[in-house]
Amino acid sequence: MYEWLDQIQKPEDVKRLSIAQLEMLAAEIRRYMLETVSKNGGHLAPSLGTVELTLALYRVFQFPKDKLVWDVGHQAYTHKILTGRRDAFKTLRKKGGITGFPNRFESAYDAFGVGHASTSISAALGMAISRDLMGRTNKVIAVIGDGAMTGGESFEAINEAGQLGKDLIVILNDNEMSIDKNVGAMSEYLSRVRLAPQYERVKQDVHDFLERIPHVGGKMLRTVSVIKDSVRSALVPGELFEEAGFHYVGPLDGHDIGLLSEVFERVREMHGPILIHVHTKKGKGYLPAEQNPGKFHGIGKFDPATGSCVKKACPPSYTSVFSQTMLELAERDPKLIAITAAMPDGTGLRAFKENYPKRYFDVGIAEEHAVTLAAGIAADGCHPVAAIYSTFAQRAFDQLLHDVCLQQLPVTLCLDRAGLVGEDGPTHHGVFDLSYLRMMPHMTIFVPKDENELRHMLYTAVRMDSPAAVRYPRGAGLGVDCGEPLREIPIGQAETLREGTDVALLAVGSMVSKAVQTADLLAEKQISCTVVNMRFVKPMDRACILREAASKKLLVTMEENALIGGFGSGVAELLADEGQAVRLLRFGIPDQFIEQGTHDELLELVGLTPGQMAERIAATRETVKD
Amino acid sequence: MYEWLDQIQKPEDVKRLSIAQLEMLAAEIRRYMLETVSKNGGHLAPSLGTVELTLALYRVFQFPKDKLVWDVGHQAYTHKILTGRRDAFKTLRKKGGITGFPNRFESAYDAFGVGHASTSISAALGMAISRDLMGRTNKVIAVIGDGAMTGGESFEAINEAGQLGKDLIVILNDNEMSIDKNVGAMSEYLSRVRLAPQYERVKQDVHDFLERIPHVGGKMLRTVSVIKDSVRSALVPGELFEEAGFHYVGPLDGHDIGLLSEVFERVREMHGPILIHVHTKKGKGYLPAEQNPGKFHGIGKFDPATGSCVKKACPPSYTSVFSQTMLELAERDPKLIAITAAMPDGTGLRAFKENYPKRYFDVGIAEEHAVTLAAGIAADGCHPVAAIYSTFAQRAFDQLLHDVCLQQLPVTLCLDRAGLVGEDGPTHHGVFDLSYLRMMPHMTIFVPKDENELRHMLYTAVRMDSPAAVRYPRGAGLGVDCGEPLREIPIGQAETLREGTDVALLAVGSMVSKAVQTADLLAEKQISCTVVNMRFVKPMDRACILREAASKKLLVTMEENALIGGFGSGVAELLADEGQAVRLLRFGIPDQFIEQGTHDELLELVGLTPGQMAERIAATRETVKD
Repeated sequence: MYEWLDQIQKPEDVKRLSIAQLEMLAAEIRRYMLETVSKNGGHLAPSLGTVELTLALYRVFQFPKDKLVWDVGHQAYTHKILTGRRDAFKTLRKKGGITGFPNRFESAYDAFGVGHASTSISAALGMAISRDLMGRTNKVIAVIGDGAMTGGESFEAINEAGQLGKDLIVILNDNEMSIDKNVGAMSEYLSRVRLAPQYERVKQDVHDFLERIPHVGGKMLRTVSVIKDSVRSALVPGELFEEAGFHYVGPLDGHDIGLLSEVFERVREMHGPILIHVHTKKGKGYLPAEQNPGKFHGIGKFDPATGSCVKKACPPSYTSVFSQTMLELAERDPKLIAITAAMPDGTGLRAFKENYPKRYFDVGIAEEHAVTLAAGIAADGCHPVAAIYSTFAQRAFDQLLHDVCLQQLPVTLCLDRAGLVGEDGPTHHGVFDLSYLRMMPHMTIFVPKDENELRHMLYTAVRMDSPAAVRYPRGAGLGVDCGEPLREIPIGQAETLREGTDVALLAVGSMVSKAVQTADLLAEKQISCTVVNMRFVKPMDRACILREAASKKLLVTMEENALIGGFGSGVAELLADEGQAVRLLRFGIPDQFIEQGTHDELLELVGLTPGQMAERIAATRETVKD
Repeated sequence: MYEWLDQIQKPEDVKRLSIAQLEMLAAEIRRYMLETVSKNGGHLAPSLGTVELTLALYRVFQFPKDKLVWDVGHQAYTHKILTGRRDAFKTLRKKGGITGFPNRFESAYDAFGVGHASTSISAALGMAISRDLMGRTNKVIAVIGDGAMTGGESFEAINEAGQLGKDLIVILNDNEMSIDKNVGAMSEYLSRVRLAPQYERVKQDVHDFLERIPHVGGKMLRTVSVIKDSVRSALVPGELFEEAGFHYVGPLDGHDIGLLSEVFERVREMHGPILIHVHTKKGKGYLPAEQNPGKFHGIGKFDPATGSCVKKACPPSYTSVFSQTMLELAERDPKLIAITAAMPDGTGLRAFKENYPKRYFDVGIAEEHAVTLAAGIAADGCHPVAAIYSTFAQRAFDQLLHDVCLQQLPVTLCLDRAGLVGEDGPTHHGVFDLSYLRMMPHMTIFVPKDENELRHMLYTAVRMDSPAAVRYPRGAGLGVDCGEPLREIPIGQAETLREGTDVALLAVGSMVSKAVQTADLLAEKQISCTVVNMRFVKPMDRACILREAASKKLLVTMEENALIGGFGSGVAELLADEGQAVRLLRFGIPDQFIEQGTHDELLELVGLTPGQMAERIAATRETVKD
């Protein structure tokens, strides 16, 4: 089926192929990738852009003796396919299958596990330090996109690496894209470097000209020497990296296997920190992805013939309801400002950008800055809404605590993709936010039970004069009506959805609808349940919880968040502090990293389906004396 | 007493003084600062370095209409003294007194609260965005040290600010120091810029030379134009910042009030992002601090005549015991590597640096990078120990979770200054670490009861094959013998210090000795207590806790950490999950930011003295049925 790909049993097989054969292999890899990703979903466009780059790396270096660290790792499909996972690639992102990102537990070729941006240079530098201490001679290579380069950690790593001078190769995979079009001064700088015209020819001309300047003495000599030095330095297109202590090589055509191999061969013999600037096309070789790399950055099932997504009919997503509501709020409040960290589409802020461009800020992949920027905006009187995926907001933990909460500033944090996110797996599940936000004084945590409540909560949050976070899940809402006028939700007030006599189910967010289903199942077993939509994890509705504790035999908490420190933990703290001895049963994410799979598979895995919960509740209820 | 300082009633009074008078004022401010800080302790050297800079700022700008954001804020004493806090300055860092850092709750002139590094440009950019949206015209100024400039968030902010083009003034206060001697490529770059000789004169010469090149056509024209462009760009010493979209001005003598005022006047009329590079001397004007700026960075009571510290006779600090133990461990294990983020002295790694320079890495103020670097080192087979203050490790929350714990890598995190740190106040208390670490799967959390146990725990941690954190308090140990050979502490095993019959006191770290004292007080009231040194917050000694729960009337937890999500929260979770209805009383830090004061004052404030705890325990014991 695949003439060349089928011959690759181990990565070294790449070395036996000619450049022409590798180009045919590249085409087959793209075809194979497309075949799999169109069925399984995944990060297609980034991985299409790095096929030749990966082949050239495997052609020249000796992995896994040499170490290869992919930043974020969404561009590593070719790497996976070459390293003994060709057939397993068909199980990409499926439960029990191979993961979407490099993963140390999956292969010796995955030198470092990734998923969040901007860690690769730090990790690679660590490996270079370890290598030198142990007297080894292997190469260490980090491959990082221009988007991830804007994350501050990359700069911190370059700052140290440039001074340490250790052998380290950084490949800057510049496709002019973060997830969306890349932003920031670094991105503009790279554009200028890429556009430097006819570099080699101009260099020769200038050289000739300078040589013709006669040798002179005194002041004139100094002047000419300054000119020569500055021209020389300005003609190196990557002077920014040279200033940082790196030897700069590039820019190179990242789809030219021959050229890349040649440069890699040369660089392999060089020492010290080297930055190779490679220019690639995101989505390369698949027209729909080339034309719309943002859409194909991370994508679900699609028709490979047309590139159109296979959409199940389902209600509008939380993201789209957030998107709409932000427009409503922006119209009412001219001081409302929206912030994204490189995710206008993922967070749903594209429409805001188009309608209110002056109040929209894409800071690049830079969550720390995003949150302090928001704090600065709030300190000066406007109201910022920072929309960040739950898992990426972990990057701004200190800024949320120190810049926002300590100063009690009215910043609204919108955490999309909270809870289990499915196929992206452990690096992307947003299952710690309730725990890490709950410990922050002055923070209000809203958790909507459905997309309509998200509207009201967002409306409430942006009218507050203190920090607030709204966390909501990935994917489709419940399909409820979203037509009612926006209204304020009383802070800290739970909503009782159903009154029962025996057990109280206290649920937050996505688990509220599951609590209702669980109550239905328990009703069949003659167990009568109160169902409460808690709405707030902080401040918690203490009166409501204590009322239920006093009147029920069993309290149950349900959350799509870590059991440690999360909502149920807060209830346990409250009951303990109040000396309430009622039996408490807590449902949530256990103390482990949760693998990938469909959302339903993962709920089943951690015991959060209504059937599983009803069973455990009934069994526990049995053990409680009447 | 102070001829000039006494005339400054409000900041505008500065504008009425001549340069010569301001210089006399500067001398008086230094004298006043010295007088106060030698009594109260504080950040002397940074604030001595910015006296003239601050005076020049107040001479030219209109604060608080213009906004001034100090990075970290330890250099802002002159700012505080000028802005209505001259007399209050005597209460610096005392309970109820003025705080050591800018603080929005203290003064309208403190535009943004700080304490952690590298937030100022983000915050200032936020204020510029807000200003423009509201159609105001004030200036926004961030003052940032070259040390804080190495923090990634600064880069993220510059990256966005350079592209946005908003009016923003960044003053780079370059004193060649972070807290220690600054490190990294950026620092080397700034040295080169500072040394650029005779800049203005060379520029004129080159300009004259270029002008003499005759106008030509064709290839020659292009060549000459390339030369002119490159010379122009290379002659601007701050080209790095120019490339980032900033207009660079400098380097300037930061102690020349006249020059600074002149430049500020000029810059005030300019638009877009401007970086003013100011060269100052840390500790300026006080010889002991000039000679040893590291020691005087943050200092306790000292004799202003000699600069020698007023030391109470007290046992060796946890930091010094950590320092010694690291030497012992390094000698045994050639793969042990130490990492600090700009704090060789604060963390006690100076001795390691001197003895094992090849295994010591100071990454600069860059906690995110520090932790991923450690993960990279561990992934390649060496064992890194990253020593970071508890409060600053908050910066690396995501890296600890995502790079270390998810990959189960053997990184040892040593969290100094855990618990209440005293006079540095809310930005520096390390009271969240047990909460933010406990939620991380695979993490082991060691909490030594004294400095000797710290030794054994560190020894145990570095021999583990998975992530570990050891957290210990600021200041003196208990004075116990530290001579025993290092030994392993069984993971997750508590130590029962005293057996009682009625109440169990479960304590961690600094609270263990207080638990013993509390038990003594309770014994006087005929309440018999078991005292347990839990030693681990994760994994918790479940068996021990359940045994106590089954045999006692009341369980008590004690920790110097947030009650939300911390050790006591874990005990509440465990008891709830096990259906244990024993009464639980939790001592710890309530849900608020704790002010500054002596450690004892703060313990009293939050109810953690043995007397207060004994009283509450006795009262609670009363309410529990026998």
